Amino acid sequence: MNSKNFTWPVRVYYQHTDAGGVVYHGNYFDFMECARTELLQSLGFDLGHLARRQHLLFMVHSAQIAYHKPARLNDMLAVSARVARVGRARLVFMQTVKRGEETLVSAELTLACVDARTQKAVGVPEAIRRKLEEGT
Amino acid sequence: MNSKNFTWPVRVYYQHTDAGGVVYHGNYFDFMECARTELLQSLGFDLGHLARRQHLLFMVHSAQIAYHKPARLNDMLAVSARVARVGRARLVFMQTVKRGEETLVSAELTLACVDARTQKAVGVPEAIRRKLEEGT
Amino acid sequence: MNSKNFTWPVRVYYQHTDAGGVVYHGNYFDFMECARTELLQSLGFDLGHLARRQHLLFMVHSAQIAYHKPARLNDMLAVSARVARVGRARLVFMQTVKRGEETLVSAELTLACVDARTQKAVGVPEAIRRKLEEGT
Amino acid sequence: MNSKNFTWPVRVYYQHTDAGGVVYHGNYFDFMECARTELLQSLGFDLGHLARRQHLLFMVHSAQIAYHKPARLNDMLAVSARVARVGRARLVFMQTVKRGEETLVSAELTLACVDARTQKAVGVPEAIRRKLEEGT
Repeated sequence: MNSKNFTWPVRVYYQHTDAGGVVYHGNYFDFMECARTELLQSLGFDLGHLARRQHLLFMVHSAQIAYHKPARLNDMLAVSARVARVGRARLVFMQTVKRGEETLVSAELTLACVDARTQKAVGVPEAIRRKLEEGT
Repeated sequence: MNSKNFTWPVRVYYQHTDAGGVVYHGNYFDFMECARTELLQSLGFDLGHLARRQHLLFMVHSAQIAYHKPARLNDMLAVSARVARVGRARLVFMQTVKRGEETLVSAELTLACVDARTQKAVGVPEAIRRKLEEGT
Repeated sequence: MNSKNFTWPVRVYYQHTDAGGVVYHGNYFDFMECARTELLQSLGFDLGHLARRQHLLFMVHSAQIAYHKPARLNDMLAVSARVARVGRARLVFMQTVKRGEETLVSAELTLACVDARTQKAVGVPEAIRRKLEEGT
Repeated sequence: MNSKNFTWPVRVYYQHTDAGGVVYHGNYFDFMECARTELLQSLGFDLGHLARRQHLLFMVHSAQIAYHKPARLNDMLAVSARVARVGRARLVFMQTVKRGEETLVSAELTLACVDARTQKAVGVPEAIRRKLEEGT
């Protein structure tokens, strides 16, 4: 599958930075979570409803991340999310964080679809699969 | 002084919530930091430039906060920031976090203008004071 | 009531600091949460069990905080928690963050005892009340 | 090289968890940062002094992480850090997060030694290299 690239703007605030003067490495996971959430939202899926009504979570199962250049306070970033693969119970996302033309961070994340009550893997709901496979 | 109310939209993502199913109390300080930063940005002041070129920070000196109702995953919130007072070296902000018509959180924060190299209080820059006193 | 002071050591790591080179103001709420949790733990109460078995949360209802001096990377801090008052459904805590003899932060927090399923206030469990009133 | 395993205890507090009832995936990077900092501290190196006196940072350059099982509120975790390789300007760490005998998370992180003023890579200081190569 080959979905389109979804991009979400994020500004760097004090809470994202550390004493090195740059964004703390762990916080890019927040930026990427934000872009994935807004991608699903743009397709009509509300993670709050999924969690509370269907007890459905997307949990990060594994990740690879490369930090190329640091982002700094008040930078405007563009955080992308592209679905690279839709498995039975898993989604693979390719994501980047850019500042203008510069790629600051690139990452691949695999998420598992999980029942919040049992923490067991469940199938990706058909409606979500269909929308993602349509090409996002 | 009696500045206008500045409001900034914030969506609640997983990283903002805790095992109680609601936004963790400390994270509202991030939401409010975000609204203050965007208020200054809207007036033409870039906190990144202030920090790196003029070694100028606004540090929170004290805060009072009341939590009326919890925000939940994927809620769209409106975070306001209003400058209630501009002192020689301090700014007092009144802030709220609302979900539609409901006020979830209200707070008053006093910030000190500080030289980042010495951590000593310095006067609020004239340009910022003027813009804020004009009525935001 | 006049409980004893409980103190918990916390080291400042990169994730606690911001581009100002000091601990980000919102993160002191994490340090204080940590001391309150360990105080309850030292009395035999496990917040995880309370949440999962009894659907019981202590939610912060209001807070006042004063920042006297900033903490910096790798500082060893002593975070105190003292129960100032046990109400029917509320607990009032006085807390400080110290570095050696210096008080960096002081705060008063009121917590409400809440049923996680309904988000409604419930009475503080008798066992906890008794332990806290014994003098912590 | 084949350093010994350094382990640091971490308890899960509310701020680490999310609305899924488990530790938020990004927060394991905080746990691992904590173990690396305490490993260096145990060898006599203070990250605060390195940053402020020698303008020296260890920045995460890349990471691979696998989430095997979720940690929950109030769990006591053991976070390990082992130096797998000391390069000229890089350190490779193998890290795990365990609860008792269960491995919840395993990760490999590559850190670059950086001059904070220029953000350029610099050699790992001899004293640190020696201590790490001695076998931690």
